[in-house]
Amino acid sequence: MADSPNCDLKSLSPLQLFERVTEQGEKVRALKAGKAPKDEIDAAVRMLLSLKLSYKTATGQDYQAGLPPKDLVLINNGTTKEEDEDLVDPWNVQTSNAKGVDYDKLIVRFGSSKIDTDLINRIERATGQKPHHFLRRGIFFSHRDMDQVLDAYENKKPFYLYTGRGPSSQAMHVGHLIPFMFTKWLQEVFDVPLVIQLTDDEKYLWKDMTIEKAYEYARENAKDIIACGFDVNKTFIFSDLDYLGTSAGFYKNIVKVQKHVTFNQVKGIFGFTDSDCIGKISFPAIQAAPSFSSSFPQIFNGKENIQCLIPCAIDQDPYFRMTRDVAPRIGQPKPALLHSVFFPALQGAQTKMSASDPNSSIFLTDTPKQIKTKINKHAFSGGRDTIEEHRKYGGNCEVDVSFMYLTFFLEDDDRLEQLKQAYTSGELLTGELKKVLIETMQPLVAAHQERRKQVTDEIVKQFMTPRKLAFEF
Amino acid sequence: MADSPNCDLKSLSPLQLFERVTEQGEKVRALKAGKAPKDEIDAAVRMLLSLKLSYKTATGQDYQAGLPPKDLVLINNGTTKEEDEDLVDPWNVQTSNAKGVDYDKLIVRFGSSKIDTDLINRIERATGQKPHHFLRRGIFFSHRDMDQVLDAYENKKPFYLYTGRGPSSQAMHVGHLIPFMFTKWLQEVFDVPLVIQLTDDEKYLWKDMTIEKAYEYARENAKDIIACGFDVNKTFIFSDLDYLGTSAGFYKNIVKVQKHVTFNQVKGIFGFTDSDCIGKISFPAIQAAPSFSSSFPQIFNGKENIQCLIPCAIDQDPYFRMTRDVAPRIGQPKPALLHSVFFPALQGAQTKMSASDPNSSIFLTDTPKQIKTKINKHAFSGGRDTIEEHRKYGGNCEVDVSFMYLTFFLEDDDRLEQLKQAYTSGELLTGELKKVLIETMQPLVAAHQERRKQVTDEIVKQFMTPRKLAFEF
Repeated sequence: MADSPNCDLKSLSPLQLFERVTEQGEKVRALKAGKAPKDEIDAAVRMLLSLKLSYKTATGQDYQAGLPPKDLVLINNGTTKEEDEDLVDPWNVQTSNAKGVDYDKLIVRFGSSKIDTDLINRIERATGQKPHHFLRRGIFFSHRDMDQVLDAYENKKPFYLYTGRGPSSQAMHVGHLIPFMFTKWLQEVFDVPLVIQLTDDEKYLWKDMTIEKAYEYARENAKDIIACGFDVNKTFIFSDLDYLGTSAGFYKNIVKVQKHVTFNQVKGIFGFTDSDCIGKISFPAIQAAPSFSSSFPQIFNGKENIQCLIPCAIDQDPYFRMTRDVAPRIGQPKPALLHSVFFPALQGAQTKMSASDPNSSIFLTDTPKQIKTKINKHAFSGGRDTIEEHRKYGGNCEVDVSFMYLTFFLEDDDRLEQLKQAYTSGELLTGELKKVLIETMQPLVAAHQERRKQVTDEIVKQFMTPRKLAFEF
Repeated sequence: MADSPNCDLKSLSPLQLFERVTEQGEKVRALKAGKAPKDEIDAAVRMLLSLKLSYKTATGQDYQAGLPPKDLVLINNGTTKEEDEDLVDPWNVQTSNAKGVDYDKLIVRFGSSKIDTDLINRIERATGQKPHHFLRRGIFFSHRDMDQVLDAYENKKPFYLYTGRGPSSQAMHVGHLIPFMFTKWLQEVFDVPLVIQLTDDEKYLWKDMTIEKAYEYARENAKDIIACGFDVNKTFIFSDLDYLGTSAGFYKNIVKVQKHVTFNQVKGIFGFTDSDCIGKISFPAIQAAPSFSSSFPQIFNGKENIQCLIPCAIDQDPYFRMTRDVAPRIGQPKPALLHSVFFPALQGAQTKMSASDPNSSIFLTDTPKQIKTKINKHAFSGGRDTIEEHRKYGGNCEVDVSFMYLTFFLEDDDRLEQLKQAYTSGELLTGELKKVLIETMQPLVAAHQERRKQVTDEIVKQFMTPRKLAFEF
């Protein structure tokens, strides 16, 4: 080992740094025990402190003698999470900020690109349609390679959409509809095939749930998805438990991905441990495989290499970072992505909503009365404590959940802007803003329920049957 | 940490032991640096040596300062291999003994049961047939729960056979036929359905091979298997790459097994490491799933819980130990097993034959001339160095590969016994014994080639089509 420990500290692994600290500690002890000159001891101690600092920077842990660094749980592309960073992975979203996750920081950390005005204008030019309010309002805020999708589209090259859902329960809330509402719009303006994956196998693996239950939830969730208004001639919805057993193309892509991803990699990306079941460990390949058109020979006439575009919430990005890493190594194009922000819980934007807490959001099965009660009782307010203060200082739209929900569901830009100004100025009271939200959500949910009633088992079967869609390839 | 390091050393993990050694080493250095009394230093050094010994016993590695114990590669049920033990796992068979692997020791280590005369007699009584010479001669030497299979059979309860092959190349040698010859006999005397798995996905994951190549080898290997004489009405042969995409039942069982096996477990059983791809890590579930009848709804009319019996070489046992461990937790019966010894390489019984070395065995494509040359040139002889010595002291059948091959392929018990006595007494010379083997193998291989020629692509397709077999369930 070299004598000058400063020269290459950054290139050392945590374990190597650990050894350097241990070594230096022994040197200091030996110098002290040998009653060495004070300046020599001081220099050695300074070096020890500097090494300990390097160790902490590299591992996020304080050096402890005799305790070599644990396997670091590397979240997000192998970089460790800093203390003040938001936690975002497919199973956790946490932030200490009432405004929610800092999405600009997330773009930097994930290495994606911001959806800026130029890109939105380009989408408008390419499709000849006014951009969806999710784009205009930054709800879909980040992307990977969307410009390439537009290049291809402008050159009349085909692409297809892929999105999905993990059917963890029968109960879906309005937040679950965001990716589907946006995907529906994308499908309409670009007129492309769409595949929707229901990861019932994932839910079976992660939850205390039977296979039968997971599959039942998949079919129930399919009804809510279909009720968003998808075109059966252009859309294929599949349960993994079903489709894996009906498509050799799908399994072949899964096993190709599985050959090119190591346990070290999924440990780094998803934080898996040695105690996790082998099903979890290999699952990421199953979410990756629909990114490749050869997983759907019936739709694409056996053609490989058709570009895929994935609209999804940003927490799903780790799966597709992995997919994009593998794609060139198995001779496939990288899927492009459009990332949405998280839908906030009624209680505030610090966490993503959970289907297991009925008060955390508005569910698709809620009655008008339940919607009213929930919003009045639980929606976190950015208003002031008293009417007087509110009139004087105004409310804070940045943390007000009713206002946030309106940005998702109130399509009228002018109206939304009026509400924002009136609330911020103090002219509009919290109760009045909540009333607008109630009046927005009640008909929206009722209409969804009405459409869902029309979705028979026969219609679900049609959507879920592997078949050719209304496109030639 | 406690002061008396001896009290509980056995309960410490390798990492904890590592820390104790490190700590004690520091203590010794401090005592020496502090010029402590000699007896105190001596006691500390003795303790250090004792701790180092415990560390080596626990890890199989010498203690190295600053180098914490690596992940231990645990072979066979989580116990580390002792130095004089034979190495037996699905990818390696090695022994230093010219007689081959010590199978009695293996039975103890694997926790299986010996196939003894009582069991062989019971099979004879149950089937009314003379036991196959593989049973009479101890070639199938070990089992798990075969008595339960016979109980069920005697009570007219159905069971089925499952065996398989990893299609690593087009070239199969005569050793590869052993499980199939025996399985064919079992199927005939018990009259039961048989499923044969071709793990082309495994070969794709483990080898530098395309998916297409692995699938091609699977179909080519199927022809050699069919040429053993299986009944198409009672036998289903499947490639994983094919069948996984045509059977929802199969994938459901795979995912059930995958939920109940952790990375720690497959690491212990198969020696996987963090650098292995996730496909390898989850593969054991794919070899496990055909042990459950619900993987074949078309054959068993959707019935679960039909007993499975697996004839295979003993190196495949780790997969099925895992399967038997999982079975009750997913509500399935444990598969029963019949284990064969390994087929020796021409060069000697120290290793299993390899399809990648053309001289290591007699291949199913060899000409009569190639067979003659290989046996004369490469078959390891248990004879003496000179004719005079051989006549005087006799040959050693226990290490003579020609004689070993004859125990596999010469069905006539009396003739084999005559040869043994004549060779052992020195009456029969090595060249003469080899001539008997040549004359046994040439017609056997030629007949196989003749039957294989009859196996058309159409016949392969019939065997490999998921369908009902000639049994009612």
